[in-house]
Amino acid sequence: MAPATPRVVVKVDLKKRPWEQNQPLHNRWHPEIPPVAEVKAGEFFRVEMVDWTGGAVKDDDSAEDIKSLDLSTVHYLSGPIRIVDEDGVAAKPGDLLAVEICNLGPLPGDEWGFTASFDRENGGGFLTDHFPCATKAIWYFEGIYAYSPQIPGVRFPGLTHPGIIGTAPSKELLRIWNERERQLEESGLSSLTLCEVVHQRPLANLPIAKGCLLGNMEEGTPEWERIAKEAARTIPGRENGGNLFVEGANLSTGDMHFSQGDGEISFCGAIEMSGFLELKCEIIRNGMKEYLTPMGPTPLHVNPIFEIGPVEPRFSEWLVFEGISVDESGRQHYLDATVAYKRAVLNAIDYLFKFGYSKEQVYLLLSCCPCEGRISGIVDSPNAVATLAIPTSIFDQDIRPKTRKVSAGPRLVRKPDVMKSTYDGKLETTRNPSSSSYS
Amino acid sequence: MAPATPRVVVKVDLKKRPWEQNQPLHNRWHPEIPPVAEVKAGEFFRVEMVDWTGGAVKDDDSAEDIKSLDLSTVHYLSGPIRIVDEDGVAAKPGDLLAVEICNLGPLPGDEWGFTASFDRENGGGFLTDHFPCATKAIWYFEGIYAYSPQIPGVRFPGLTHPGIIGTAPSKELLRIWNERERQLEESGLSSLTLCEVVHQRPLANLPIAKGCLLGNMEEGTPEWERIAKEAARTIPGRENGGNLFVEGANLSTGDMHFSQGDGEISFCGAIEMSGFLELKCEIIRNGMKEYLTPMGPTPLHVNPIFEIGPVEPRFSEWLVFEGISVDESGRQHYLDATVAYKRAVLNAIDYLFKFGYSKEQVYLLLSCCPCEGRISGIVDSPNAVATLAIPTSIFDQDIRPKTRKVSAGPRLVRKPDVMKSTYDGKLETTRNPSSSSYS
Amino acid sequence: MAPATPRVVVKVDLKKRPWEQNQPLHNRWHPEIPPVAEVKAGEFFRVEMVDWTGGAVKDDDSAEDIKSLDLSTVHYLSGPIRIVDEDGVAAKPGDLLAVEICNLGPLPGDEWGFTASFDRENGGGFLTDHFPCATKAIWYFEGIYAYSPQIPGVRFPGLTHPGIIGTAPSKELLRIWNERERQLEESGLSSLTLCEVVHQRPLANLPIAKGCLLGNMEEGTPEWERIAKEAARTIPGRENGGNLFVEGANLSTGDMHFSQGDGEISFCGAIEMSGFLELKCEIIRNGMKEYLTPMGPTPLHVNPIFEIGPVEPRFSEWLVFEGISVDESGRQHYLDATVAYKRAVLNAIDYLFKFGYSKEQVYLLLSCCPCEGRISGIVDSPNAVATLAIPTSIFDQDIRPKTRKVSAGPRLVRKPDVMKSTYDGKLETTRNPSSSSYS
Amino acid sequence: MAPATPRVVVKVDLKKRPWEQNQPLHNRWHPEIPPVAEVKAGEFFRVEMVDWTGGAVKDDDSAEDIKSLDLSTVHYLSGPIRIVDEDGVAAKPGDLLAVEICNLGPLPGDEWGFTASFDRENGGGFLTDHFPCATKAIWYFEGIYAYSPQIPGVRFPGLTHPGIIGTAPSKELLRIWNERERQLEESGLSSLTLCEVVHQRPLANLPIAKGCLLGNMEEGTPEWERIAKEAARTIPGRENGGNLFVEGANLSTGDMHFSQGDGEISFCGAIEMSGFLELKCEIIRNGMKEYLTPMGPTPLHVNPIFEIGPVEPRFSEWLVFEGISVDESGRQHYLDATVAYKRAVLNAIDYLFKFGYSKEQVYLLLSCCPCEGRISGIVDSPNAVATLAIPTSIFDQDIRPKTRKVSAGPRLVRKPDVMKSTYDGKLETTRNPSSSSYS
Repeated sequence: MAPATPRVVVKVDLKKRPWEQNQPLHNRWHPEIPPVAEVKAGEFFRVEMVDWTGGAVKDDDSAEDIKSLDLSTVHYLSGPIRIVDEDGVAAKPGDLLAVEICNLGPLPGDEWGFTASFDRENGGGFLTDHFPCATKAIWYFEGIYAYSPQIPGVRFPGLTHPGIIGTAPSKELLRIWNERERQLEESGLSSLTLCEVVHQRPLANLPIAKGCLLGNMEEGTPEWERIAKEAARTIPGRENGGNLFVEGANLSTGDMHFSQGDGEISFCGAIEMSGFLELKCEIIRNGMKEYLTPMGPTPLHVNPIFEIGPVEPRFSEWLVFEGISVDESGRQHYLDATVAYKRAVLNAIDYLFKFGYSKEQVYLLLSCCPCEGRISGIVDSPNAVATLAIPTSIFDQDIRPKTRKVSAGPRLVRKPDVMKSTYDGKLETTRNPSSSSYS
Repeated sequence: MAPATPRVVVKVDLKKRPWEQNQPLHNRWHPEIPPVAEVKAGEFFRVEMVDWTGGAVKDDDSAEDIKSLDLSTVHYLSGPIRIVDEDGVAAKPGDLLAVEICNLGPLPGDEWGFTASFDRENGGGFLTDHFPCATKAIWYFEGIYAYSPQIPGVRFPGLTHPGIIGTAPSKELLRIWNERERQLEESGLSSLTLCEVVHQRPLANLPIAKGCLLGNMEEGTPEWERIAKEAARTIPGRENGGNLFVEGANLSTGDMHFSQGDGEISFCGAIEMSGFLELKCEIIRNGMKEYLTPMGPTPLHVNPIFEIGPVEPRFSEWLVFEGISVDESGRQHYLDATVAYKRAVLNAIDYLFKFGYSKEQVYLLLSCCPCEGRISGIVDSPNAVATLAIPTSIFDQDIRPKTRKVSAGPRLVRKPDVMKSTYDGKLETTRNPSSSSYS
Repeated sequence: MAPATPRVVVKVDLKKRPWEQNQPLHNRWHPEIPPVAEVKAGEFFRVEMVDWTGGAVKDDDSAEDIKSLDLSTVHYLSGPIRIVDEDGVAAKPGDLLAVEICNLGPLPGDEWGFTASFDRENGGGFLTDHFPCATKAIWYFEGIYAYSPQIPGVRFPGLTHPGIIGTAPSKELLRIWNERERQLEESGLSSLTLCEVVHQRPLANLPIAKGCLLGNMEEGTPEWERIAKEAARTIPGRENGGNLFVEGANLSTGDMHFSQGDGEISFCGAIEMSGFLELKCEIIRNGMKEYLTPMGPTPLHVNPIFEIGPVEPRFSEWLVFEGISVDESGRQHYLDATVAYKRAVLNAIDYLFKFGYSKEQVYLLLSCCPCEGRISGIVDSPNAVATLAIPTSIFDQDIRPKTRKVSAGPRLVRKPDVMKSTYDGKLETTRNPSSSSYS
Repeated sequence: MAPATPRVVVKVDLKKRPWEQNQPLHNRWHPEIPPVAEVKAGEFFRVEMVDWTGGAVKDDDSAEDIKSLDLSTVHYLSGPIRIVDEDGVAAKPGDLLAVEICNLGPLPGDEWGFTASFDRENGGGFLTDHFPCATKAIWYFEGIYAYSPQIPGVRFPGLTHPGIIGTAPSKELLRIWNERERQLEESGLSSLTLCEVVHQRPLANLPIAKGCLLGNMEEGTPEWERIAKEAARTIPGRENGGNLFVEGANLSTGDMHFSQGDGEISFCGAIEMSGFLELKCEIIRNGMKEYLTPMGPTPLHVNPIFEIGPVEPRFSEWLVFEGISVDESGRQHYLDATVAYKRAVLNAIDYLFKFGYSKEQVYLLLSCCPCEGRISGIVDSPNAVATLAIPTSIFDQDIRPKTRKVSAGPRLVRKPDVMKSTYDGKLETTRNPSSSSYS
């Protein structure tokens, strides 16, 4: 009688590597990666996925796996899934795919995750000039709650994030992506001044055959070689969301997060995990034209839209840190929200350091806890104002400033610390002579 | 028996001009502007203020007052107020001032406000390259709700914003501000690439004697002349919040907003009004060192922190627009949240245009309604991802996309429109060939 | 140009007594009390009102005014207000009046209120058998916050309550009210078993000429005498809300509360104050038949419906107390939610007593703070289950139970206490031998 | 390394009957039912449970299983679980058990549930005099959402309810329960007037050997016979929550609800399902005395307390129905919250009936959707005021009243209807001549 239980359309086996899965995974965007499953509009289905590194990061006591992670291999995605309407007619370019997330969570038996920051010479992170070392913290899940042995004194309900949900780009869109990112990589350092403040490198992740996994296409064939050279990397987010560029939509998902704060600042910044999504799709025929307007030079420059679901952790008390677009050296930038947000995050880190946490602990925590990053003012020249709001109840101590005098310096020492590798590079770090410590 | 009713420490008379007030206003930051009132820590007091333009903008049917507004005169602030502790000892540099906002609102009998965007050659706004004309909308308040005859079909409870609350800078901090902004103004256009995407001008608002009002200091005296040349403009927000740099704190407030959305994008973007604040202050002795860490080269480079109050309009359904750091020309930027947010806002404007609003109506609406601007991702190179979330219940129609086909093009025509002046300049505007119209 | 500022349709002068006001007040429901003002549908207007006792309770250090309060005089209401549509045609019986509360608050200069419980022989309260004495606490308002010198350690944003908003009953409805309440008063004690558990007396407040105020009708005339004998008391709430029974609606309001918890248990249980409402009305023609269904024997037995406004204090952490329908003597009742709620409230009072409050402090606090009273289960015979949820952040200490041992008994002594009169009656009180004290 | 995945301490097999489970279930409260598992304080563990009827209600097209359900067999509980501290010392009488619900949900592969009302002569429900027939609706789960083929036009995220969580009573507490309920059953009809308004029968569910399941005790032994006669039924909720009365606590759980509204009015009123709980327990030694106060004649008359979790569906718009303590016949009751709530629910049912639903559909819907039942006023004699708040967004139509005229009567006919059996009894039903229909 019942249509109840979701149909599992992609299943993963966590004991197998990404390329050994029955429905092989992929880690690139390309219109020719063949679908591994098909679902109907209105159908309630389930997709399982490995963590974004495909199991390369372990629940152990070292950050070396982070330090040496091969970023050419991420993110491993499940799919593509071909979407057809109730009559079996495939979704088409120009349609919109309305994807409802009905449920999501970790895979049973694998209830743990990790947050990390990368070595400055292997990917870095938003604050890599301040924190050049690879670091790692492990999180264990107790139902909706997460806690980390490496970040004691904190426990919170996860603000679960579905990670990557995207459709396959068309060849033309692929070309646009690769072209604009290649230009950036080639000339950005000299042409974009934000590069002087944000030191994460490389500027862009261009197509590369190394590390490439293309579903059930056989590696080494000419076709594989061609596609591997064309296929876009899955870092960063781009114009593919519910916008459809290829017949059948070719929907892929991956990179589940048990929890993520706005910004996901440390790069491997959410609580990364394996997991599942339970989804329903509707096809809005011709919806791209109906509802969206490309804001760039071509009809393909169009961003997805979202609705917010009705269930998320509820907090009522927040401590809010502000930053303005003046960088750490005192240089004035012009309405630069990135600089302002960097300052807001640095302010928060130094503040919480005074309550007994190490700065690395806070850096990782602010990447994954349910914090809110806001563009508060983007108009009073020259200062963009950005804020970072942190829910106070995730801490086991009262972190609010108090009128009554309290003794200076760290009040509690939160031990142990996050796992940390050495930084062996020679790039200069940003030091703050006023900071509470030279962490 | 009762300490109840707040003591009114600054009163304004809306029939008088800013310089005619009994407790004269000021529109610059400077340590030597003398206090006009004194309050004790723990005291519950009230401050009234004129709107940021001091009455220059009228409730009429033209945007010409906006077009010709003299920006050297804003923002008119009430204060400074000297703060002392319960023993009468003044707050000192290095202390923190904890300011609790107990209440705020419009002044009785003056329950209206305005939202506007400036002419591209007189201040502009975040999207001035798209909207070069001066525009204006009037809002009337019905208790906690606002509606505008110029933006029909929308009504919402205000997300009231206290506007400017700041303390006087020290001479040294003033020097830092003026110096860094002067450098920007002089060389920013050639040295900062964000200037190529965000076209609001001037880059900075430097000290200028013209339009200067310095409380009860007499204009034309040598002292007045000196201070007028040194005093910082009140645009933009900077390091002075609750951080104390002068003895007595010298707290000033002004620029009340009946409602403001994150970003306040159109520059005169909130619902600007006259109003009152009811406040309590506590002095946290030595709090700057205790709680805050300067993130810049000097101990003065330190940002305020905030707590969020317990009362604000509650919405549960939101439509969310995304932007990435690729500008309208298709150029790839590097982790630039400002570019990403500009795109998110443009996407929202074009979306709502399809529901019958003019683009100028949406531009002003998104400046002042309770919308949320988020830095969603600031780490996956090269795309910063910013989002703009709009509460759906402020509209009298359902603005969500629907699966069932609806006819293309505007469904409702929202008339009348905002008031609009001509743009007489010759700067090029940004045109989007894919857009729903050439508004 | 502007329709902004609300038109004040009823103004009160707090220096005058209720019967001295220019627009005289009334304290009874009757169709023949003449309107004192008229408003149009869609008009934004303001009504001022005295506190429910018309100034009889003072901001002083004694509960004697509560002990001796003449309950025949309450509640003093502003109005009636005649409502007409945009064409000037009056609202009619059978229409619905949709009343939007746009704003509400205390009157400027009178920012204080009181919470009290009555003497057991003068009105009592929900727990009068436990607390037979008259008690009183004064609250001072700091904007949206209230605090009481008599209940230290607590401060909260008010959950403001509009008090009484009602329309005039028809003669027939009046007859129904008076008849059913008279029957209760005459035979309830012998016929209703709940009277054995809830000891507030009298059972009903019947029409009485003493204390009667009928707007601008002249006291002592035959017409006044007739109406005074027929007019219903304003205690309790009944079928008149937005339901219309007389031409013109004859809307009256009064009894503003700065804050009220669910149940308003101590009778004078909210934070009682003078205040204002800013309102808009719409007439839904024939709406009673269209939308409502009388659930009693006549078409007049019909209750109003409500929508919840978008702004109220936001709390995220609550401590919840439960009660079941077994009374203090151990007697089992049958699905009796009143008994269950009485137990839940008693449980909460004794719990908070252990944190240093007197029981009278908690009794008054739970009447007025933003607490939630729920009917959690009303079906598993024989136990109704009711709960009382208290927001934890209104206290300056952590009131949650803790795993780690803490010393027994009061940890803090909250002094001073509420003001308290002697109880001179001889009715037995309910004593709990297990209770933490014989308060 | 990881303590992650919860240890499954009670596992159920849905293909087996309750008495066939490896860890046999029980459906009575008694101190001598032996534990089936043991957990340590602080341990993260999982308990699975069958639905409250142990599979007796089917996903089919008939309500006959509800009509004939043997209520002597419910609720089937998992456990008891013995709780020890970290040193292995058992929890003791007088301790408190702090039970944290870390997660909960349906069992994989069994994602459906049912809501029902019982036949008036087999248990009934809160409104059984209005709805004497057995009715049933099936709900299917799509992740966090539920929908029912029998109640079209409604879909909502579940407000999940853990059902029964309780500890074993001591012999003395058991004696108190059985004694007070026996007295009610014997004399309640003649002694309690609420029985004249609420017609659910029997008044109490007394111990009965028929249908009794006592874990792994062997049926028919003298011990089994003795305990079966003493053991309390699991209907209703009583003093056992986290209060400890026996060594080891003997914690049992069962009766999971995918969603439940306040009141759970139709008796089988939530969305009943099989499911799991993931829990952590802490022992608060001597906590009963430390934190709680018995409110009845013995130290055992003590109710549990709760904290509210941080995650639940978020709604911002509600329609609220009110009832007062005047029953359907027009009889005035005295501060009777049960009568008032009955009226509020009846008002809501008739209101929604006008939007195209059958009354039985609404009756079941209001039992299980995330609605709030409040005790709004319990002090203004003689009317208790109760309210029922329904979130508007669970409907696919706008259910709010509108100013503009709409045609009378049902606007949409929601078909099909709930499943319904005949009522073959002869008890009189309550008819409302004013009602929209004689449903």
